[in-house]
Amino acid sequence: MINVGIIGGSGYTGGELARLLVNHPIMSVEAMTSRRHPGVKVVKEHPFLEGFTDLRFVETIEQVDDLDLIFVATPYGASMDITPKLLDQGAKVVDLSGDYRLQDVRTYHKWYGIEHRDQSHLPQAVYGIPELFRDRIAGADLVANPGCYATCAILTMAPLFAKGLADNEVIVDAKSGTSGAGMKLTEMTHHPYCGSSVIPYKIGSHRHTPEMEMALGMIAENDPRIVLTPHLVPLIRGIVSTCYVRLKEPMDLEDMFSLYTDFYDGERFIRVSRNPSMRSVSGSNLCEIGYGMSGDDMAIVIGAIDNLVKGASGQAIQNANLMCGLEETMGLNFPGLGV
Amino acid sequence: MINVGIIGGSGYTGGELARLLVNHPIMSVEAMTSRRHPGVKVVKEHPFLEGFTDLRFVETIEQVDDLDLIFVATPYGASMDITPKLLDQGAKVVDLSGDYRLQDVRTYHKWYGIEHRDQSHLPQAVYGIPELFRDRIAGADLVANPGCYATCAILTMAPLFAKGLADNEVIVDAKSGTSGAGMKLTEMTHHPYCGSSVIPYKIGSHRHTPEMEMALGMIAENDPRIVLTPHLVPLIRGIVSTCYVRLKEPMDLEDMFSLYTDFYDGERFIRVSRNPSMRSVSGSNLCEIGYGMSGDDMAIVIGAIDNLVKGASGQAIQNANLMCGLEETMGLNFPGLGV
Amino acid sequence: MINVGIIGGSGYTGGELARLLVNHPIMSVEAMTSRRHPGVKVVKEHPFLEGFTDLRFVETIEQVDDLDLIFVATPYGASMDITPKLLDQGAKVVDLSGDYRLQDVRTYHKWYGIEHRDQSHLPQAVYGIPELFRDRIAGADLVANPGCYATCAILTMAPLFAKGLADNEVIVDAKSGTSGAGMKLTEMTHHPYCGSSVIPYKIGSHRHTPEMEMALGMIAENDPRIVLTPHLVPLIRGIVSTCYVRLKEPMDLEDMFSLYTDFYDGERFIRVSRNPSMRSVSGSNLCEIGYGMSGDDMAIVIGAIDNLVKGASGQAIQNANLMCGLEETMGLNFPGLGV
Amino acid sequence: MINVGIIGGSGYTGGELARLLVNHPIMSVEAMTSRRHPGVKVVKEHPFLEGFTDLRFVETIEQVDDLDLIFVATPYGASMDITPKLLDQGAKVVDLSGDYRLQDVRTYHKWYGIEHRDQSHLPQAVYGIPELFRDRIAGADLVANPGCYATCAILTMAPLFAKGLADNEVIVDAKSGTSGAGMKLTEMTHHPYCGSSVIPYKIGSHRHTPEMEMALGMIAENDPRIVLTPHLVPLIRGIVSTCYVRLKEPMDLEDMFSLYTDFYDGERFIRVSRNPSMRSVSGSNLCEIGYGMSGDDMAIVIGAIDNLVKGASGQAIQNANLMCGLEETMGLNFPGLGV
Repeated sequence: MINVGIIGGSGYTGGELARLLVNHPIMSVEAMTSRRHPGVKVVKEHPFLEGFTDLRFVETIEQVDDLDLIFVATPYGASMDITPKLLDQGAKVVDLSGDYRLQDVRTYHKWYGIEHRDQSHLPQAVYGIPELFRDRIAGADLVANPGCYATCAILTMAPLFAKGLADNEVIVDAKSGTSGAGMKLTEMTHHPYCGSSVIPYKIGSHRHTPEMEMALGMIAENDPRIVLTPHLVPLIRGIVSTCYVRLKEPMDLEDMFSLYTDFYDGERFIRVSRNPSMRSVSGSNLCEIGYGMSGDDMAIVIGAIDNLVKGASGQAIQNANLMCGLEETMGLNFPGLGV
Repeated sequence: MINVGIIGGSGYTGGELARLLVNHPIMSVEAMTSRRHPGVKVVKEHPFLEGFTDLRFVETIEQVDDLDLIFVATPYGASMDITPKLLDQGAKVVDLSGDYRLQDVRTYHKWYGIEHRDQSHLPQAVYGIPELFRDRIAGADLVANPGCYATCAILTMAPLFAKGLADNEVIVDAKSGTSGAGMKLTEMTHHPYCGSSVIPYKIGSHRHTPEMEMALGMIAENDPRIVLTPHLVPLIRGIVSTCYVRLKEPMDLEDMFSLYTDFYDGERFIRVSRNPSMRSVSGSNLCEIGYGMSGDDMAIVIGAIDNLVKGASGQAIQNANLMCGLEETMGLNFPGLGV
Repeated sequence: MINVGIIGGSGYTGGELARLLVNHPIMSVEAMTSRRHPGVKVVKEHPFLEGFTDLRFVETIEQVDDLDLIFVATPYGASMDITPKLLDQGAKVVDLSGDYRLQDVRTYHKWYGIEHRDQSHLPQAVYGIPELFRDRIAGADLVANPGCYATCAILTMAPLFAKGLADNEVIVDAKSGTSGAGMKLTEMTHHPYCGSSVIPYKIGSHRHTPEMEMALGMIAENDPRIVLTPHLVPLIRGIVSTCYVRLKEPMDLEDMFSLYTDFYDGERFIRVSRNPSMRSVSGSNLCEIGYGMSGDDMAIVIGAIDNLVKGASGQAIQNANLMCGLEETMGLNFPGLGV
Repeated sequence: MINVGIIGGSGYTGGELARLLVNHPIMSVEAMTSRRHPGVKVVKEHPFLEGFTDLRFVETIEQVDDLDLIFVATPYGASMDITPKLLDQGAKVVDLSGDYRLQDVRTYHKWYGIEHRDQSHLPQAVYGIPELFRDRIAGADLVANPGCYATCAILTMAPLFAKGLADNEVIVDAKSGTSGAGMKLTEMTHHPYCGSSVIPYKIGSHRHTPEMEMALGMIAENDPRIVLTPHLVPLIRGIVSTCYVRLKEPMDLEDMFSLYTDFYDGERFIRVSRNPSMRSVSGSNLCEIGYGMSGDDMAIVIGAIDNLVKGASGQAIQNANLMCGLEETMGLNFPGLGV
């Protein structure tokens, strides 16, 4: 067995990691931390896990020995103080906080508003989208798990950028369910406020923007510029990203189909579909990608994921599998709810 | 013109009063108070009123002269300290807080957990369901506006109790949209928590229970006992109450139809319908009532209202119209959204 | 009184016209047609109107004399056979079907798939967005009421095009509630299919595209090209359109604010807002417009309307008011639900 | 491996069986029938299964040999013509249609409106709630899988009836997500109709009523009478049943807790909870049961299930596991989504 820990176990991401790992044949959750609820049973905060775990939250992960891999699901800023110790103790780390996603510390400072405090480990952090960076992830001790919006947009546009077909500026109009906003009570997620609305927010200023630019830049010839508008929609799980990509040369729907099916050939968690659907991927690690054309020079590519799974905890496990030399799909090989 | 004020103007009920009074031909909102936002423009808290009011919140209503009628939309407990002064100054008061609904101070203490501090005015308070107590409301200076669940259940069952057809114990299974929980952020109204669930709460212990018992008792020969289970459902406006009433003598659907259409004959805001619908009453002061039978001795009567209108601010205006000698339907005579 | 008729009265748009006209002080609905339900009471199809109308559907409007103005709410294709007769009889017509929106019959043929059969009246049809074409509407006998997506996008982008600030190609990412899809049962509006999803459809091929291009072209110096992606979102009423407009010269948020508030100064139904909200306009004829910037050369302008009111029946009444020489806001001067 | 077939594979229940069986270690779906789509790939109707099955629908199950167990997910009426042949061929059958739930053919005729045509096999059919009838299911060749409302209500009230504590007449106020209404397009499941409403239907006349009475009668001393009101609520998966049970002797909350935890001790799929939650069980085979009291003589017990899993396909697999001598939880041992 591989013993794993979860730091920041009381939030949605932590609970989702525990939910998914219940069925992992090799990984076993041996510790979950919560600064607010030390000593409290995990099922008190995550009642849907009753019967599936007897753990109690610990205050810090140092209290637990022999963890092979640790998921850090804290807010950003906290991880870069914790992660160095974990790495020094020899544990592998999948960081979901955002602290290790951006290799450029000035970009980090600009978007996160704080200085980066772990520049010694930052260079070894691998951006964790297995479909694009599988080999580097497999050899890494530290993987930066991407943001939910970033995962969806990057996977959706990667073939166009990787093949040099995309103009450098693209528009990502993203719609997210409310679980993406986390467990913290806010006006925006108060049901009477959001329950029958579409709410744009952080227009042009969402933190997932620079990681989209960085990751697409790694596979592209040009220097992508992303215009991102996130919207909150009245459902719980799911992101749909509608991406508008001007093409360097004309394409038609058949070209698009070939491009996408070839690029993602053999990928277990990518499904090319004319009708990408949130329900089809809900609860699963799948990403559905569809496409249309406006004229012959503007591709409209649309991705759908479950923000808590492929957009967070599922992809984290996918990364962890690779880091531990396991079958990449282990514990994640099941379809979405569909209905 | 009749000058009205709204105490507690920054909440949903206060905003809804202002929304409805925009179109009232005689009443004019001259003051709205907010302890948290004194001096702030009303439209800052209620942006949907931009262009319809230039008012700024005042801290206390004493700052405003010449108000003929005041709606008190504070939390319970606060109203009984404010209302006496308003009455003494000669204003009429519609109290939406709950403080003047229960005539029995022991019952008030039991359900609200505090002592009643205005027993001098309590006896003159009239329970404000115009369809049942119209004459008394017309002559009153102080009307206790009923709770949302209470309004719906009482109107739904009144004909059976008034005609002596109902057994004394009834079950009210109520489903409410989330606006009923108010503007305060709570876990229960956090979208990821409630957005795809039906959540029972305060089982057998909701404060609207004793006012249902009191009001039905006023029109019944017996002493009603209400078993109330409220549920939160994932929509914003609306209450549907499913009421299970054992009958003293057999009835069939035609009997029910006759009973209800006769009892509510000529009532502008009551609609007897085989398919009572939240959407039909949404945004309006209407109450739709439907019915079915299980065997010939159990009536299942179902009421639907908009909790913010007939369940709160609309009925408050209906009461105010009566108190001021106006046409009862003034400013309220429009249909629901339907779709 | 002005006697009006509604052709196609059994659909959502027809019902909404009737709902709104209940409170119109001058217009009176004297006839509603339904080919499927002739002789049936209107309230059978629109139960939320019970108590507000005693009309029965007639099969054809010819059965009714003395109508001053007729709203044609049929599907496209049917209106151009009916409208000529109505005009010949001297009635004014507001056509909601789409048949008279596009002045170029080849464009009509391309997007609607049928030949235009009333080229004699087409040239006199005025495109009915009062905020842009008020004078022409006031003198018209035939007004083409715009599509819901078109209304929202055109109003949202008009200031930028009218002032020559917009690049000619823009992207409109639109999100609509399900009432926009009409009363007809479809898989896409089956609740288990759409109730927790965001569904893109008619990517780059929606019929409202050419009218956006035509109307913006009428106020612009250049020849706009619209890339439109409509999405269905799980709510009933409302459209939010996120429009991405590249600017010819740099602007900042203050410039945008000045531009929009100046352009729409005095407009009763336009509200410039940092947080445009579906709930604020729900049930009303208002359009809220907000804006953000990505860099200094890409404006992200966002409009919100109620698709059945400002996007259809409300704007139709606004047009009818103008055509009849009435106050433009008559019967429409009330705020949205807000909550 | 155990080869299984699904008759009626194109509906929600059939798709859900296939979804769940993807992860069953022993059972393999070898055939799915669809009369409407013979020859068509299963993933065309259930796109969320793309990558998980290569099957094509067959017209009839006779075309497939060597099936050990067959799930019959046809509409009622069809199963009793098909099931006899399957049994005669030696296959085990789990019938989800309703045809074999009621042992009394007159009751069947009364509620289903047709004569029962397979009275020869009916007596051997076992009502399939494993928590109550495990031993009989284990030895059965034909199991009648219960209705969704019935499963929820029976499990919720069983301890009170089994221990002789319940009065014979109980009220079940049930709220179901829209997937329970199936794939067929209906007005009631049209999003603009149901998407922001609570819709009571089949008041006192729903077909699941007699099976609740039968099954509870099997474990009770008395003859239960069920008053059932189903409601449609605006979410997709889930049933919450609020059951009002008058007690023969006083109980308090501690008594209830003991009763329920004792009765369901060791049951993998039952969770006794103060706050039963649809989200906690969503996607899983779990049933959460909570309780409250009104006075000391009225128990309010509340059950929550996923109607497509524990209310249909999950329980069918649970039954099939027992019938095949497998571990009862096989393929079903995972938590609900929680969020």
